Formats: sequence, C-alpha cells, structure tokens
Amino acid sequence: MSAKYCITLKDVQDAQANIQGLIHTTPIITSSSLNALAGRKLFFKCELLQKTGSFKIRGALNAVKNLPANEPVAVVTHSSGNHGQALALAAQMRGIPAHVVVPRTAASCKKAAISAYGAQIIECEPNDKSRTEVAAQTVNDVGGILVHPNQDPAVIAGQGTIALEVLQQVPEIEALVVPVGGGGMLAGITIAAKAIKPEVKIFAAEPLNADDCYRSKINGQLTPNLKPPTTIADSVKTSIGPNTWPIIRDLVDDVLVISEEEIKAATRLVWERLKLLIEPTAGLGLAAVLTTHFQEVAGNIQNIGVVLCGGNIDLASAEWLHE
Amino acid sequence: MSAKYCITLKDVQDAQANIQGLIHTTPIITSSSLNALAGRKLFFKCELLQKTGSFKIRGALNAVKNLPANEPVAVVTHSSGNHGQALALAAQMRGIPAHVVVPRTAASCKKAAISAYGAQIIECEPNDKSRTEVAAQTVNDVGGILVHPNQDPAVIAGQGTIALEVLQQVPEIEALVVPVGGGGMLAGITIAAKAIKPEVKIFAAEPLNADDCYRSKINGQLTPNLKPPTTIADSVKTSIGPNTWPIIRDLVDDVLVISEEEIKAATRLVWERLKLLIEPTAGLGLAAVLTTHFQEVAGNIQNIGVVLCGGNIDLASAEWLHE
Repeated sequence: MSAKYCITLKDVQDAQANIQGLIHTTPIITSSSLNALAGRKLFFKCELLQKTGSFKIRGALNAVKNLPANEPVAVVTHSSGNHGQALALAAQMRGIPAHVVVPRTAASCKKAAISAYGAQIIECEPNDKSRTEVAAQTVNDVGGILVHPNQDPAVIAGQGTIALEVLQQVPEIEALVVPVGGGGMLAGITIAAKAIKPEVKIFAAEPLNADDCYRSKINGQLTPNLKPPTTIADSVKTSIGPNTWPIIRDLVDDVLVISEEEIKAATRLVWERLKLLIEPTAGLGLAAVLTTHFQEVAGNIQNIGVVLCGGNIDLASAEWLHE
Repeated sequence: MSAKYCITLKDVQDAQANIQGLIHTTPIITSSSLNALAGRKLFFKCELLQKTGSFKIRGALNAVKNLPANEPVAVVTHSSGNHGQALALAAQMRGIPAHVVVPRTAASCKKAAISAYGAQIIECEPNDKSRTEVAAQTVNDVGGILVHPNQDPAVIAGQGTIALEVLQQVPEIEALVVPVGGGGMLAGITIAAKAIKPEVKIFAAEPLNADDCYRSKINGQLTPNLKPPTTIADSVKTSIGPNTWPIIRDLVDDVLVISEEEIKAATRLVWERLKLLIEPTAGLGLAAVLTTHFQEVAGNIQNIGVVLCGGNIDLASAEWLHE
C-alpha cells in the first residue's frame, strides 16, 4: 500500500495488537433463509455485539492507546452517539476525562450511555459545521486532544481490524459490504482487506438521503452533504472527509444507495431472521445486498461479508416498527 | 449416571455426533454492564441464534435421526411453536412429512415459520389435554411417529448437547440457569453437566404463573399445572412430565420462580445491553439471576451460564414493549 493514504495495513495490524484482549472478537452469524433471499452466502459480522454496542470502540481505543504517554490529558470528540460512547469507555479505561459533543437531536439512549461511561456531554446543533466548531471550542477550553470520529488515522486503523477478523473467520470471503457515514470503518476495512486479499470487492452502503459518498464517487471529488440529512440510519448522517475520501475514491469498488423503506425492511429482516437487535444503520448492508443494483455489480460473487455495525437503538421511539 | 433416568451422558454424546455439522455451535456473549448488575460473571449461551431461532432443533434432529431407517415415515408433534418449527425443519432435512399440532392461540409468526418449513399445521385448544388428544388422533390418521416435544428421550438427549458445548466454551462454569417448561432442555442439560462436572449447580427458571416444576419439587411429586397458564413466556406454558421429572427431582439444585414484571424487565435488559432479540421465555434466566432468592441460593458462585433459549417473538404484537 502506498503512502498516499493516511494509514497502511501495518497501522491496522498495530491497532489489532493495541486493542486485543480489550474488545470482543465478535461472532459471524449465518442464516439459511437470508442466504436463500439473497441468492448468495452472507456472513454477518456482529459488531452490534461489540463492547459499547458498536464497532466504534475499536478506533477509539486505538486512538487513546496512541496518545502521548508523558502526561494524562483529556480527550474530546463530536459524535451522533456511538463514537461518543466508545471514546468515553476508552478514556475511562485509560483513566482520563472525556468530553463528547453530541447533536441535541441524538437518541436519548445514546446520550445516557455516554454519560454512563463517565464522559461529559456538550450539546451542539445537528449539522457538521456546529459539531466541528463546538468541538474545537471544547478542545480549547479543556486543553484536550481531539479524537475525530472518522478522520483520525488511529481511529480509521482501529476500525480496519474488523477486516482482519473477518478474513480470518471466513477465509473464503469474496466481498465486504460496509455502511458509510464519515467513512472511517469503510476506509479502514478497505485498506486492510485490499492489502491482504486484493481480489476482495468492497461495497459501501449509504442512505439515499445522505448520499455524499455516492455523489463524491460520481463527481470524482469530495462532495459533502450540504444540508443535515434526514434518515432513520442516524449513525451515518455525517459526510466522508479528507482522510477517508482518497481511500474510498481509489479502492472502494462501488457505492449502493438505499431508500428509507429498504433500510426499514432490511432492519426488520435482521431482527426477525437473525434475532439480532441492530440499529437501522446496520440494516444498510443487507439492504444493499438485496438491491437490483447489487445483482448487477456483484455478478457471480458468492461469499459476502456484511458488517452489522451497531445495535444502539432507542426502542421506545421506534414507532416505525409497527408501521 | 444410573439407569433410573430416561437418558445418560452417553445418549447426549451420541446426540452431539448425530447433529454435528447440521446445527450452529452458538456463541457465548458476555456484558460488563450485566455482570456489574448481577455481581457475577454471566455467560449467555445464544440459542436464539440457533437454526429455527431456538435450541429445539437439537432435540428434533436427534429424534428424527434416531427413527427406524427401513422406511420413510411421517413425524407428528404438538408444540406451542419452537419445537414445531424444529421438527418441521428436521423432517424436511430427512425428506419425510411432518404434522404439527399447534394451540390456536400460538403467535402467528410461529405458525408461519412451521408452514415455511413445509409442515402441516393442525390446530388444538390451548391446554395439555387437547394437545395430547389431537396429536394422538393425528398419529392414528397419518400413520406417523410421535416426537414428544419434551418427554421423548432422544429429544431430551439432543437438548443436553447445549451443556456439552457450554462446558467446552467456558470451562470455568460453576452453575447453569435454564428455563423450564416441559423440562426437556433442563433435564438434558442436567444429565450431561452433572455427569461431566458434578459440582456444577443447575438452577431452573420458571414463570410464577406456570410454576408446576417449583411445586413438584416442593411436593416431592409430579404436580402439573391444572389450568392453562397465562404468562408472557409462552414457550414454557407446558408442564414437566414423567421422563423429565425424576431428573429434575434428584439433580436440579433449585427452581426460581419469576414474576411477569421480572420477565419483561430482564427481556428488555437483554435487548438493550446484549442487542439480542430474545423472546420473553429466554428472559427467565437473567431474571432468575437478578432475584434476591438467587443471591441466597447461589452464594459465592461467580461464573454462571445463562441459556438464552429462543428468539421467536412476534414483534407486531409485543405491545408491552412500550409500557
């Protein structure tokens, strides 16, 4: 892997050594009925069963492990929830304070979980600009270090450890389907998977209502969402950024855009068939595999890894469940 | 193990050989927050992730494998749902017809799943007497073989394979907490676990509203539920029977009875903390561990296996979710 990207396979391997024993090696689950529906063999990587209920602890722990060792510092981040929880726990494990900037519209269960891990919550407006500004101000106020939820190289490398595990758990994997918001997980997985097994296809799954990654690929340049997106997949409302974009631009094979109805249907399918309580964002992968677009681009590929990225859902507010 | 019980450890080991490769070796999941809540280390055996969404496929497959090989026959059973699905799939795997007697009040998702595996459904009244009578009539009508959901020795031996797996996955296990309805899973696990590691404690978890196992132990004799029980734990409405009772009487250390509110609270906890979409019956184990009674009887035991027996829940009808 050339040095034109913010991380290499070596960074992902180092991240794995950093976080091993502190996180779960999450299981792979399969389902005959979903295989029949997709016409392929699907291997679901259960990151909803990860500590803090999402894969985000991988990147957060790696970033906190990589902090300068000379003195205790605070960490700061902005997050719609899952990275906030993850950084809060990672900081707690290292015994340093965490300050998390959260959109005031984030699910209450996510805010509660961040507080439960001992972090301080600072609210911002639900758009990229406000998140960035309030986080910068907080860094200034508390003298902390910003751990960006998806552009920090140590975070991206941490998320890439998912690929190392999947390739070991299912050596026959031919493709991976990965939800994309800021692109940290997508970029990390892509760097690791393509370095180890270049023939593996990487497909991103993105809400149609937050399709900056899709449009960036079409335009050939980074094209963030202009307005705060409205999607039930609330963990991927953010846009890809300067560190994840080059990796996505060059190495991701295709981006599949998914309607809200498709997200809901796939989420329900995972609940009913896999008995896994994913959040809607984690339904993107299965939804992508079931699109006609996927039939066109995936051809004869049989063995597909689907990342179920998280399970932090506020059931009390999930009215669409009964629609 | 003496011959006074309907199965021995050898039967469970034979069952494991019979079903290996046809079922999932389900993962063990842990949660720091639930450990903190319980004050112990909990190891959740995820049988909700088993084929057909419950452990029942273990016993059903073993029973079908043990059928006479000379000619194709039909199998018949009565089941509130999970054993029905399991026997339907087991029969489908062997290419023989299955007829499943189902209480007319059973969850519609369970009936649909039984049909989806190619079995024929015959409705009965929701009580033990009607189930037994309609099943006997069906056996007579179709010339099939009855595979009792919890008193058939091959079924009990099949369910016991859960214990073989747990003891291998978590060698430090000191106790197992097992939901009890007809007692097939409880008896099978007890025979296997006590034979391999006699110091392992076995605790049964039973709804207060269907407490025949608890009352049988108190009375020292088999004491079935007199009326059809009303409980949200719909997979354990049936009573223990003549084959499971002697094992439960002699070898099960204690029975914990659980209120409906405790079942709901534990089910929600598993959903929120473990992200596993268990059915309420599978909440019995965690509920039991959280009772004050358990604190009294379990003493210093630290490492506890909790069987999450199934995940076949009709979300559309789960109004209590929003209570």
